[in-house]
Amino acid sequence: MGEHTLRVPMTLHAENRERLRTRLQAHSNAVAHAPGTVVLLQGGDDTTRYSADAEHVFHQETYFHWAFGVLEPGWYGAIDVNTGRTVLFCPRLPEEYATWMGNIVTPDQYRARYQVDEVRYIDEISDVLRGMTGENGTLLTLRGINTDSGKTTLEAGFDGIGRFQVNNAILHDEMAECRVHKTKAELDVLRFAARVSAAAHRAVMCKIRPGMKEYQLEAIFQHHTYYHGGCRHQAYTNICGSGCNAAILHYGHAGAPNARTVGDGDICLFDMGAEYYCYTSDITCSFPANGKFTSDQKIIYNAVLAASRAVMAAVRPGVSWVEMHRLAYRTMLAALKEAGIVTGDLDDMMKVNLGAVFQPHGLGHLLGLDVHDVGGYLEGNPSRPLRAGFRSLRTARTLEEGMVLTIEPGCYFIDHLLNQALANPEQARFLVPNAIERFRGFGGVRIEDDIVVTADGMEDLSGGTIPRTVEEIESLMAEGQQEDVFVPQLHAEQKLGH
Amino acid sequence: MGEHTLRVPMTLHAENRERLRTRLQAHSNAVAHAPGTVVLLQGGDDTTRYSADAEHVFHQETYFHWAFGVLEPGWYGAIDVNTGRTVLFCPRLPEEYATWMGNIVTPDQYRARYQVDEVRYIDEISDVLRGMTGENGTLLTLRGINTDSGKTTLEAGFDGIGRFQVNNAILHDEMAECRVHKTKAELDVLRFAARVSAAAHRAVMCKIRPGMKEYQLEAIFQHHTYYHGGCRHQAYTNICGSGCNAAILHYGHAGAPNARTVGDGDICLFDMGAEYYCYTSDITCSFPANGKFTSDQKIIYNAVLAASRAVMAAVRPGVSWVEMHRLAYRTMLAALKEAGIVTGDLDDMMKVNLGAVFQPHGLGHLLGLDVHDVGGYLEGNPSRPLRAGFRSLRTARTLEEGMVLTIEPGCYFIDHLLNQALANPEQARFLVPNAIERFRGFGGVRIEDDIVVTADGMEDLSGGTIPRTVEEIESLMAEGQQEDVFVPQLHAEQKLGH
Repeated sequence: MGEHTLRVPMTLHAENRERLRTRLQAHSNAVAHAPGTVVLLQGGDDTTRYSADAEHVFHQETYFHWAFGVLEPGWYGAIDVNTGRTVLFCPRLPEEYATWMGNIVTPDQYRARYQVDEVRYIDEISDVLRGMTGENGTLLTLRGINTDSGKTTLEAGFDGIGRFQVNNAILHDEMAECRVHKTKAELDVLRFAARVSAAAHRAVMCKIRPGMKEYQLEAIFQHHTYYHGGCRHQAYTNICGSGCNAAILHYGHAGAPNARTVGDGDICLFDMGAEYYCYTSDITCSFPANGKFTSDQKIIYNAVLAASRAVMAAVRPGVSWVEMHRLAYRTMLAALKEAGIVTGDLDDMMKVNLGAVFQPHGLGHLLGLDVHDVGGYLEGNPSRPLRAGFRSLRTARTLEEGMVLTIEPGCYFIDHLLNQALANPEQARFLVPNAIERFRGFGGVRIEDDIVVTADGMEDLSGGTIPRTVEEIESLMAEGQQEDVFVPQLHAEQKLGH
Repeated sequence: MGEHTLRVPMTLHAENRERLRTRLQAHSNAVAHAPGTVVLLQGGDDTTRYSADAEHVFHQETYFHWAFGVLEPGWYGAIDVNTGRTVLFCPRLPEEYATWMGNIVTPDQYRARYQVDEVRYIDEISDVLRGMTGENGTLLTLRGINTDSGKTTLEAGFDGIGRFQVNNAILHDEMAECRVHKTKAELDVLRFAARVSAAAHRAVMCKIRPGMKEYQLEAIFQHHTYYHGGCRHQAYTNICGSGCNAAILHYGHAGAPNARTVGDGDICLFDMGAEYYCYTSDITCSFPANGKFTSDQKIIYNAVLAASRAVMAAVRPGVSWVEMHRLAYRTMLAALKEAGIVTGDLDDMMKVNLGAVFQPHGLGHLLGLDVHDVGGYLEGNPSRPLRAGFRSLRTARTLEEGMVLTIEPGCYFIDHLLNQALANPEQARFLVPNAIERFRGFGGVRIEDDIVVTADGMEDLSGGTIPRTVEEIESLMAEGQQEDVFVPQLHAEQKLGH
């Protein structure tokens, strides 16, 4: 996207295709690697708002992007499992297209751009695929359930596919498993996305002033990631909760659109991440709107930071993610106990799952082309836990080198969860009533980093560019407050000509 | 969205519903106003990216928004045609919703917010509707083709609708016709959207510097509309074409994502519009990247401006939009003739439709909740013209008071259209070959304003806040160049920590 952003080599996708072929060739089902077996994927199509003609900015389907890196809508791609020969299929565009959408790129130009063996028109797909499969070969298509959305993947289909042997039982799990492990090339893109987002979070901390609207901070973040980082898409709906809204885990949606005025003394919980070349980031910063932590804010912030750092110190290949979730709860509860918010024996608190009262969500999730990346609960891996908090984990896997995850412990004061806990004698005996009452309406704190599991531990993909300690945050924000920032509601009548 | 934005009264929607009832009561088909006839609309639902769980920021379906102003996904709404009684149906949310999405709003709170007679849960819809229709009443549902997209509207459906009499033949055309005429309350919102966008275009003109990427100008525009205007959505995909890209009418899509570096001496054609409360704006500014028009740029710019101003002077109720398109062509060709780019008799040029060589798109379109608003080719109105350029018109109607349209003449140098014209003896004889060659690669100019037809003419919805003459543009840009603007590609390595 420009000299100041990251150039992504097309070999990223060639390497992904090779990894997929290697897995398929080792598959126990001989169909996966018989002569004439061909992987067939269908890319995403343009979509509009309902029946209107306003198109969304096209976003490629992520399995297709992983394999081919094609940026345009309406394509197909095929990979011969035995030879690796790769053919892409593009739409045949009418001449008028050039008037409206720009020069028509020829298949040969696309072949050079996407570095595949051949690019053909979609109206040739039947013949070309028949040439690849021969009479007896099989098309492997993608069919599987996304365990985060419950939705089924986009399975390739075209006029005439009925004349082919099609197997849709093999490909999904093999591709999803490949996607769980990131290559060096993929990590470069993920690092870039994380660093752009980290820089944008710093810009927000410098420019925030009590009196602004939450969405103005979202605007600053988006602007920074696009203007400075070339990130046209955000990875998810930005969450800009201030004050009590910091306790709403998925705040920011259309029913609660970051529209509150940020108050002096509020805690802010800003969970925002840009994506670059479809690779996502997912970062949360929590800080006081006015730049100075109160003593209560410091207590909760440091409890969450302790949990985050304990997990970071323990993460390495072979460790169970469920154990990491448990470690986060335990570390946070120990800090809350020290602060007099809970009381009693830590082991007993863990037995009644007291952590889930304060952090009802999972510790973190796989991250990649999807912000909640695929492969969390593939067959042969631990299944979803049952207890509150734990059951919100999007994976229960044992960590392996090359996995990218978020680490995002949090501590929130959510009325109906506190009420439930107070009404439950098993949990209520650990809660210090006065302290709990003091924190009602406080909001919450989440600290979220993107990491990759390395051979002997982990790497923070932001490269340590996010201020994390109370001191680092207060110092950055004090610096930011030197700047002259336009707080628009005071002057908007003039600005907008009203 | 805040003190500095516009507060929209719910009476906007009550008035829309009343207008719809009035039309239905006057309908020739007695079903439209029989006792127990009830309009039933279904609102939009949340959508995700393919099979992943990343949700798009919810955007309400526009017929539903027009009638009710509901901002949340998954609702229904019903209006008794005879009494006007209005009932909304909201989803019944589980208690856990509060943890993730925020406080659960009760039906009574929603009733107060949306100012309707009653709000019920969707699981009660069958019983409530039966109460409204009685045994013999009819549900009017929305089924019709959008003439811009060719897609069919979202028709209401629910478990149990089979036990009702349903008529889907009446409602669509009546609602679309209502939407064509904007009320005073709607015009206030459209004016706000236009003025926010106009201010953002001015910001772009002040901050542009050769060497920037086109998408950085898109970023500035989006930031301005969101930060200063509370506009979370853009009305369409922003077009930021510089140099030769200014001749690509729908530049900016994923296959051509505003990624060129803006050159010194380039013409820029920036077609960008924000939306506020679902009401859209659609504004194009064309100007030189370096702030000074060359003499060739001035020729083309002033030819288009002359066309725009001629149309603005002629627009009033009773005028045919097709005639306005013709007037724009004629005015532009007269200016091109004066500049020695075309030659010969103007009437003869119009006979061979020479205007369409330079402006292959329509003069403008209806504007409202959709950027290409509904109602362009409703039954009983003139049908789509056949000739090039004219056939791209999204309406051929006779203008009426309260219609909102864009006026957007343009002049582009598009290689394959010029080649076609040069190969066509009928058109070629009017083209001055040297001049045409001089302008190849020039790009193009479009000047687009949003207007409402008034009793005796028209009103520019931006209130004249867009610089339009060469002098106004050069003076604003000269002012902007006093500002210190960060051109990020020079410093990004440091900024991003790379």
